[in-house]
Amino acid sequence: MQLYGYFRSSASYRVRIALALKGLSVTQVSKHLRLGEQLADDFRKLNPQAMVPVLVTDNGENLTQSLAIIEWLEETHPQPRLLPADPLQRARIRAFALSIACEIHPLQNLRVLKNLGSHGLDESARNQWAHDVNAQGLTNCETMLQGATTPFCFGNAPSLADICLVPQMFNARRFGVDTRKFVRLHAIEAQCLALDAFQSSAPERQADAE
Amino acid sequence: MQLYGYFRSSASYRVRIALALKGLSVTQVSKHLRLGEQLADDFRKLNPQAMVPVLVTDNGENLTQSLAIIEWLEETHPQPRLLPADPLQRARIRAFALSIACEIHPLQNLRVLKNLGSHGLDESARNQWAHDVNAQGLTNCETMLQGATTPFCFGNAPSLADICLVPQMFNARRFGVDTRKFVRLHAIEAQCLALDAFQSSAPERQADAE
Repeated sequence: MQLYGYFRSSASYRVRIALALKGLSVTQVSKHLRLGEQLADDFRKLNPQAMVPVLVTDNGENLTQSLAIIEWLEETHPQPRLLPADPLQRARIRAFALSIACEIHPLQNLRVLKNLGSHGLDESARNQWAHDVNAQGLTNCETMLQGATTPFCFGNAPSLADICLVPQMFNARRFGVDTRKFVRLHAIEAQCLALDAFQSSAPERQADAE
Repeated sequence: MQLYGYFRSSASYRVRIALALKGLSVTQVSKHLRLGEQLADDFRKLNPQAMVPVLVTDNGENLTQSLAIIEWLEETHPQPRLLPADPLQRARIRAFALSIACEIHPLQNLRVLKNLGSHGLDESARNQWAHDVNAQGLTNCETMLQGATTPFCFGNAPSLADICLVPQMFNARRFGVDTRKFVRLHAIEAQCLALDAFQSSAPERQADAE
């Protein structure tokens, strides 16, 4: 399989973690988002949305959208599980993942920050915007986990929730959020970052890291 | 079951459609987003994110995030299917749904438009922002379906993709997008709106419609 991504794209980072947790190795192809490589015609043929990640399967199918890719990995390579069997627990984990993937990440990615710039927000205002989106969103995430004491977000092993959390914590720090104030999230992140799968997927460990 | 929602919330609209397609009836409770009813303490106990929809199950569990709710409905009430059995087709449908739920909807909802206002964008600029997000996002959606000729997004019956598409088309028109230019999406929307489940879920048919 091939994964088109970018070291600092947190959606790519999610897929890297999922692949690593499942012990799947892929060829990684970097698309430099700041240089706009994802906008080139050849890449648009892979993904008309001109976004990373794209996973090209062994059958040559192009899969897009990180959560859809991870659900596909879960269905085609079930072990180790990233979602438990119980529907209620699956719903809780997906809701946590979506609260990051829908409510935080899209509001602070490069494309939106550029768009805010074209609407007159200077760099300081854009960074404040991204800071606030992360701080508020992670506050919600912390609240969603209130009362639980498991090492990972939802249990004793990493799930789709942890896969979304760790890249968002990385992003939040980039925008100056003090993530240590999220006591539960911070402890979970430490548990995750002790695992090889999370370490090897980290942005700074990628070949295209700057 | 109880569904906390708002007639014009497109995430609530998605869940209404899914429930109706599966023939499930629920008690609906309206939370008036413009009046900020979702911010009240009693509602935050149901959902710390202070967002609709929330589905309260027969066991008193509160489920949040529309796509997580719909996946839970699919797992607990499998018929009629909103996702086919084939993992590849499931990935395509989820990617289409997520391209709306992550790339369009969060960037043009009331919360974000208010936030843009507090960063100095006047009403005209905010509406232009929401127009552009919808127009660009739906252009991507149209491209994702290129070459297909099925009556619905991915086949002969509505799926999670159609459930996300129809509310977004409704939103796009609110912001002045001429949705007829998306020939394929427009035809699919017409197929959907011919079905009772989509008709009864429409914003203007809800008790809290203004």
